[in-house]
Amino acid sequence: MRLEDVVNFDENGLIPAIIFDSDRNKTLTLCYMNREALRRTLETGLVHVFRRSKNKVMLKGETSDHTQQMKELLVDCEGNSLLIKVKQNVAACHAGYFTCYYRRFDPASGDLEVIEEKIFDPEAVYRPEK
Amino acid sequence: MRLEDVVNFDENGLIPAIIFDSDRNKTLTLCYMNREALRRTLETGLVHVFRRSKNKVMLKGETSDHTQQMKELLVDCEGNSLLIKVKQNVAACHAGYFTCYYRRFDPASGDLEVIEEKIFDPEAVYRPEK
Repeated sequence: MRLEDVVNFDENGLIPAIIFDSDRNKTLTLCYMNREALRRTLETGLVHVFRRSKNKVMLKGETSDHTQQMKELLVDCEGNSLLIKVKQNVAACHAGYFTCYYRRFDPASGDLEVIEEKIFDPEAVYRPEK
Repeated sequence: MRLEDVVNFDENGLIPAIIFDSDRNKTLTLCYMNREALRRTLETGLVHVFRRSKNKVMLKGETSDHTQQMKELLVDCEGNSLLIKVKQNVAACHAGYFTCYYRRFDPASGDLEVIEEKIFDPEAVYRPEK
């Protein structure tokens, strides 16, 4: 059973990948990979994603240096999604949190509450593009 | 910040939801919800999904009784995906494993290896549909 025989890319050529930090046992983000992003991830050991808004393959952390070092790659039963366990450098979220899932739904109020600490200042890390 | 103001459904009316077992610290599956599946999940406390192959909302575990009791619901920074922490009854995967991510990529060989124990017999649980 080889990886390339099992993985299904959707009609846009993408597969969703759940990124999970092994050391801290936290789900970090959900990203999308095309065939090229998956190839580069496997070759370099660093997570590469297909950024839909920019229509290109990018190294996760290219601007911020907040890279994700791949530890394990798992495939779901139907080959429709990946689970990639990583060691996250600094933080995964562009909003300054370790994980993108920093807001929890409070059933009592119907509101979202922030449950994580902000660990970096996005304005200091992401310089305006020239 | 209310949940319904933050959550984005895609052009097919769906949002992906990562299902994670809190007790065992395992990512179980990636499912898709439409507005109705999300509403029923919040109302009942049991994960409901939009099953794309059947084009309808279903209770996860409807056939098998392998339901997922919601403990927490989190939203990502952009409102494009959910992380739902659950207590899984028996197992999440229709193939008989606790998690759908039971196969790991082995970089040395390029093959996938099964790393989980099968904990139920799918043929005994899923009777043929009438």
